[in-house]
Amino acid sequence: MKPRRTIADVARLAGVSTATAGRVLGGYGYAAEATREQVLKAAHELGYRPNALARSLITGKTRTVGVVTGDIQNAFYASILRGISDVLGQHGFGLLITNSDENLEQEVRAVELLLEKQVDGMIVSPCDTRGAQHLRGLAAAGVQLVLIDRAVAGLEVDRVLTDNVAAAEHSVAQLIAAGHRRIGIVAELVGEPRGQVADFIRRVQRGTLTAADPLYPSWQRLWGYVRAHQAAGLAVDPALIRRAGVYAPDAARVQTHLLLDLAAPPTALFATDGTMSEGVVRALSDRGLDLPRDLSLSCFDDLDWMGFYRPGITTAAQPRLAMGEAAAHLLMERIDGATVPFRSVVLPAELIRRGSVAPPA
Amino acid sequence: MKPRRTIADVARLAGVSTATAGRVLGGYGYAAEATREQVLKAAHELGYRPNALARSLITGKTRTVGVVTGDIQNAFYASILRGISDVLGQHGFGLLITNSDENLEQEVRAVELLLEKQVDGMIVSPCDTRGAQHLRGLAAAGVQLVLIDRAVAGLEVDRVLTDNVAAAEHSVAQLIAAGHRRIGIVAELVGEPRGQVADFIRRVQRGTLTAADPLYPSWQRLWGYVRAHQAAGLAVDPALIRRAGVYAPDAARVQTHLLLDLAAPPTALFATDGTMSEGVVRALSDRGLDLPRDLSLSCFDDLDWMGFYRPGITTAAQPRLAMGEAAAHLLMERIDGATVPFRSVVLPAELIRRGSVAPPA
Repeated sequence: MKPRRTIADVARLAGVSTATAGRVLGGYGYAAEATREQVLKAAHELGYRPNALARSLITGKTRTVGVVTGDIQNAFYASILRGISDVLGQHGFGLLITNSDENLEQEVRAVELLLEKQVDGMIVSPCDTRGAQHLRGLAAAGVQLVLIDRAVAGLEVDRVLTDNVAAAEHSVAQLIAAGHRRIGIVAELVGEPRGQVADFIRRVQRGTLTAADPLYPSWQRLWGYVRAHQAAGLAVDPALIRRAGVYAPDAARVQTHLLLDLAAPPTALFATDGTMSEGVVRALSDRGLDLPRDLSLSCFDDLDWMGFYRPGITTAAQPRLAMGEAAAHLLMERIDGATVPFRSVVLPAELIRRGSVAPPA
Repeated sequence: MKPRRTIADVARLAGVSTATAGRVLGGYGYAAEATREQVLKAAHELGYRPNALARSLITGKTRTVGVVTGDIQNAFYASILRGISDVLGQHGFGLLITNSDENLEQEVRAVELLLEKQVDGMIVSPCDTRGAQHLRGLAAAGVQLVLIDRAVAGLEVDRVLTDNVAAAEHSVAQLIAAGHRRIGIVAELVGEPRGQVADFIRRVQRGTLTAADPLYPSWQRLWGYVRAHQAAGLAVDPALIRRAGVYAPDAARVQTHLLLDLAAPPTALFATDGTMSEGVVRALSDRGLDLPRDLSLSCFDDLDWMGFYRPGITTAAQPRLAMGEAAAHLLMERIDGATVPFRSVVLPAELIRRGSVAPPA
């Protein structure tokens, strides 16, 4: 292995001090022309890369943006990354992607890594919507931050979110309008507010929840589910609310089977994200149930397969590409020096009606 | 916006030259203790990050690895990234992900960006399997390289590939064994060897292709298709070979409709990757055809939906997680100083038999 050449190697060959070589290669401070030439010749001979890294120590700009995704394996982030990447490309900025795996420790490490790589800004999907000390310190380090998918309580930085409450309310209202009265919901329900589902529903019903609550998307979607029932004058049956507790299809599959085993099973299901949707569909497949004849289903997030499944799956499509583009635009403006107050961009999801919803049998 | 603090800022506040501040913060060269304290105090006051970046200029090591994926939106890379990430994490290495979009210019920029960020090694899925000058120069820059999914002609570096020829041959042999004689293939067929399909088939039949040919995976899978026919003593009908020419489901969908419109249509289809598979299934859905009653289908790459589609889709599952892990292991060994000759790891795909293959009607 040929080791990477360092300033010290260049200095040795050029017969100058490391500090002098550093001055020449970094482009700061004084060096005699002859010395300069000597150092550059040595750097060339050794294959030393007079790179943006050394320059960035001086200018403090790298024209690079870092993204911390919650789960790089999730199709949700794929389109977001496409949107971010397209906008950054237009601005001549490079993109470095890291992954938190929805694990706070890994997110802290990812942010630290991007700081070390001197990015000018970050787009983060935070896995801790309450604490997030590592994010609060970024502005002080001169790094611009935009949050995506989730806000952080009290952290006033630009953010791009989906209007989850409205989209879920609309989805469930559609099922009620089709005649359904017993609608099961299969939701992840991890993260904030971390409490009991029953307490949360009481808060929704009493109207004591506010947009300032740092809720995870699946709780916001449960909020919409409850609101749709309220609007239609229907009681919420706690037995129909199933918390997967893990972000995995199999957890949703198990909860779906439990729902269908109830003495009074639901006639329609609402799955609150793409992963839950996969688990629900697997459970229906396990039982050989046909959509929408035996059961209606409305999902959240428009995954590829929902378009060619038979029947096509009705779902609330998040504007993932637009979310990524919006986040990148906000970030570029900040990096360019915009000093406007922080902005919260809340984009609507679109209910795509396919073939999985019909009146109850 | 609070700008990132630079060495020059610290030097100004400390009342020393930029070179002196650089020496102290970079940890190289001489500085009087009083000066040192002055500089560190100024750095602290300004929130200057005495970071790994400055240190890496000295040590030449960053404990960071970069990955260049062909298409970050493709589920194929998602599991590969998971495998890479797991192994790097065990070694305490950070991971930076970039994307080429299967575009050579973007790949060159991604490699350049990772070089600027001083990664110790790269894992690249090369979109040019012949030229790749930007990759040939990496070793000289002290950066270790491992290729994944595709090899580059004459570039003797570690690589991890799927045994595409064998997996495709096995898939098509299975269809022949079920009684099919007219088997359509829907394949991307871009990239090397870039020629006519008819010429390629002649080369396969004459046995003039070798493993040294820098073929794209979809051409290798066509190779397997032809070999299965040869082994069974069946002629290859060029009308049954459909080149999508674009890596998009709709291109495969169009080609599938063309296949099914033939005077003598195929009784079985072989789709050579996950994206082609999606297009084929969409076309079958367009026509209301039922698998495997009306037609048999064998796919390539095991995407989530293939497991819960009705019926389940028979497919050649690439060992994506293992591919990522193997690539990361090879890279870690090189970064640790291994000087063994270059290694080519070729992993088998597993034929997962589900419900989409049956004897012809």
